[in-house]
Amino acid sequence: MTAFTATVTVRLKRGVLDPEAETTQRSLERLGFDLNDLRSADVFELDLDADSADDAAERAEEMAERLLANPTIHDYDIEVAQAE
Amino acid sequence: MTAFTATVTVRLKRGVLDPEAETTQRSLERLGFDLNDLRSADVFELDLDADSADDAAERAEEMAERLLANPTIHDYDIEVAQAE
Repeated sequence: MTAFTATVTVRLKRGVLDPEAETTQRSLERLGFDLNDLRSADVFELDLDADSADDAAERAEEMAERLLANPTIHDYDIEVAQAE
Repeated sequence: MTAFTATVTVRLKRGVLDPEAETTQRSLERLGFDLNDLRSADVFELDLDADSADDAAERAEEMAERLLANPTIHDYDIEVAQAE
């Protein structure tokens, strides 16, 4: 077993309203910053032991499907790196 | 002016309690997943026009300092890429 870190990034699907991101963008604009768009995402870094990077990615995907993301409104992607 | 996307990742500093991450980890364990640790982070993707990648990074850093991160409890890092 090797130690891996799987990074799961959970984003709202295009077209799903994100009032928090809109508020953040407006607050930045009120502070004088000029920006075209702001999107927010949640990241989960999972430390786990697995036989291979593929195995770690598969388990992270299962966790995303079961709990971390809501497939109705979220997209997610997964990156796996061997833990240092 | 070129269009850039600056990705600001905001993490809790080591030692700062993260009850939400602990709850998520426990929920995953209750679902039968085995993991050593779970950390969460917030990501902001900022679309902005700037003269150079350095200029975009500098402005993203200012936004992190002023609003996106709380320097008392957060660390952040910034990656800039030219928008497609």
